Amino acid sequence: MQKIGILGGGQLGKMLLQAAANYPVETWIMENDIECPAAHLCHHFIRGDIKKYEDVYNFGIKLDALTIEIENVNVEALEQLEKEGVKIFPGPSVLRIIKNKILQKQYYQQYQIPTASFVITQNREELKKQEQLLPAVHKLGTGGYDGRGVQFIQTKEDLVKGFDQPAVLEKLIPIHKEIAQLVVINGKKETALYPPVEMIFDPVLNLLDYQLCPAELTTQTLYKVEAIALAVAKNFNSPGLFTVEMFIDRDKNVFVNETAPRVHNSGHHTIEAHYCSQFDMMWRVLLGYPLGNTDPILPSAMINLIGSNNYRGHAVYEGMEEALKMENAFVHIYGKKETKPGRKMGHVTIISREKQDLLHKANLIKHTVKVIS
Amino acid sequence: MQKIGILGGGQLGKMLLQAAANYPVETWIMENDIECPAAHLCHHFIRGDIKKYEDVYNFGIKLDALTIEIENVNVEALEQLEKEGVKIFPGPSVLRIIKNKILQKQYYQQYQIPTASFVITQNREELKKQEQLLPAVHKLGTGGYDGRGVQFIQTKEDLVKGFDQPAVLEKLIPIHKEIAQLVVINGKKETALYPPVEMIFDPVLNLLDYQLCPAELTTQTLYKVEAIALAVAKNFNSPGLFTVEMFIDRDKNVFVNETAPRVHNSGHHTIEAHYCSQFDMMWRVLLGYPLGNTDPILPSAMINLIGSNNYRGHAVYEGMEEALKMENAFVHIYGKKETKPGRKMGHVTIISREKQDLLHKANLIKHTVKVIS
Repeated sequence: MQKIGILGGGQLGKMLLQAAANYPVETWIMENDIECPAAHLCHHFIRGDIKKYEDVYNFGIKLDALTIEIENVNVEALEQLEKEGVKIFPGPSVLRIIKNKILQKQYYQQYQIPTASFVITQNREELKKQEQLLPAVHKLGTGGYDGRGVQFIQTKEDLVKGFDQPAVLEKLIPIHKEIAQLVVINGKKETALYPPVEMIFDPVLNLLDYQLCPAELTTQTLYKVEAIALAVAKNFNSPGLFTVEMFIDRDKNVFVNETAPRVHNSGHHTIEAHYCSQFDMMWRVLLGYPLGNTDPILPSAMINLIGSNNYRGHAVYEGMEEALKMENAFVHIYGKKETKPGRKMGHVTIISREKQDLLHKANLIKHTVKVIS
Repeated sequence: MQKIGILGGGQLGKMLLQAAANYPVETWIMENDIECPAAHLCHHFIRGDIKKYEDVYNFGIKLDALTIEIENVNVEALEQLEKEGVKIFPGPSVLRIIKNKILQKQYYQQYQIPTASFVITQNREELKKQEQLLPAVHKLGTGGYDGRGVQFIQTKEDLVKGFDQPAVLEKLIPIHKEIAQLVVINGKKETALYPPVEMIFDPVLNLLDYQLCPAELTTQTLYKVEAIALAVAKNFNSPGLFTVEMFIDRDKNVFVNETAPRVHNSGHHTIEAHYCSQFDMMWRVLLGYPLGNTDPILPSAMINLIGSNNYRGHAVYEGMEEALKMENAFVHIYGKKETKPGRKMGHVTIISREKQDLLHKANLIKHTVKVIS
């Protein structure tokens, strides 16, 4: 059996392990938190810091292959491991680009991938000269995650709120739709595309509210989206799963926002709604199996269960019975002990032939299921 | 979080744990083999003998609830645990009946559940007087499992092959169809029925060859089957999952063959083909959640991957790529290190609207995927 490791033990790691259990593979997890969601579902749990060179190197050197469930890992260690023959999915060169929002924007520019206009600012002084790009969003080059390291700058007066470190100032796109598409590339350079999903974000927390799959797009826009997502993934020149997040404006222009080189929140619906889930697909890439079928079995909606405001501590799932009673809902609770505002605590997927049914039930879930303490 | 234990760590335990990972529950497994399929997917693995009173008692006394993935467990310990307030699914009284084929037949008789005519024989001398029941099958009261403890007796001359211990001699039914139906009963005595599945057995190994869901039955026969399966489950007066195996003869008479009071091989297709899988359903019963939806999303075929004859040792899965390439196939490898003839090593589920597609692909899997060493 191949020995395959995952850096990080959150819900993405957990769902990867649920899928791994269908295949002959020895699973290894490294994570600092011994009570993390993935800790009890692997053959070997190693406590360690995924950001530390030594921890990552010592973990990886025993393995045949290594993947991530979060980008915030020690890339130097992965580069060394790659040199010593450990297969890394995605390649460390991809992580170098993705982890730095400046390099990521330059990557899109280099490959003529449409993305919002931007300038790079080294400090607040440089930022103050970029009035012409407003309204815009200022993103820290490194260190930002899940809403941190991002600052909206609407007017000239807001410029002082920007970062005094290397960052990207991006012109705001008048967003008509926000979509994400998952692209898969295996070791033989074969590719597969999942249908794009359509997302609605909570404007306050900047966390996914709910999403629909497939996204409603004209055929022409779909082709454009697919071509762009494929270009993003292919130019990395690395096998792996790539989630390309895009904006579409009212004129049907498509802009790449960000890419995650891994299984992703926007792919959770694939567990029940698609023939091959993103987690199953990742193992197919890791183990050298044929790519799976990305077609939907049925259309779907996915709702994140987020820690409610004003609650911190031992998680309680209010209204979960309502979701469990729904005839076409699938409940996933990640098993995190503590809730806090905005924390991803679980998700619910609805599958149905009828869009009205999906929307109705997604709203019902949003209003009945709460994570409190 | 509730602490819930499973006695046994085979593939059924493994698939229970894959489903458990969606809910807030602390999982415990007891099993003698530390390399069993379920060992690495639980919060706590306890090495122990599920047939030993002390091991089962000491394991269970720490838990809120306990279930089984095999009937061959120490029932006395479960009875004591039940007295001390541990919830047992199914109740130990059910296991007492099921574990003894004599008591099981008498149970069907007591509740007027149709089953093949039978006599109980205490020894070979008594057996020899039962010529009038031939052709028949002789089943050991206790100790039989997966083909062991079962002897076909076609003619008078075969009577000497019968068991010299308490056993049941059952008249052979001219089988037209062999089906199984899964019945669920929760703590509130609410019930749910999965659609019956239709099975084809390998005449040599007596192991499931492949099955189809839903079984092709006339509405009248379906109603009869459902009423019988429900009567079998309800009269046990215990919550749990009950798999009722039945024969149908050419005159559409239905006979109960055997019942398994647990998740079952014949329910594996429910993982992908039904809204609520048998494993998910078991957790709903264990955790006191609402029952799930037993409807199929699509019709399905399920093929067991069985250790090939003449191969023993480290398992190799020949032709697995063929199954992984199929656009509507789901591959499950149980991760048992050693294969032996007839051992259940994995299964493949096919889902499709078209029966011809199901049959065609099931046959393709049968002929291309082999477990060798």
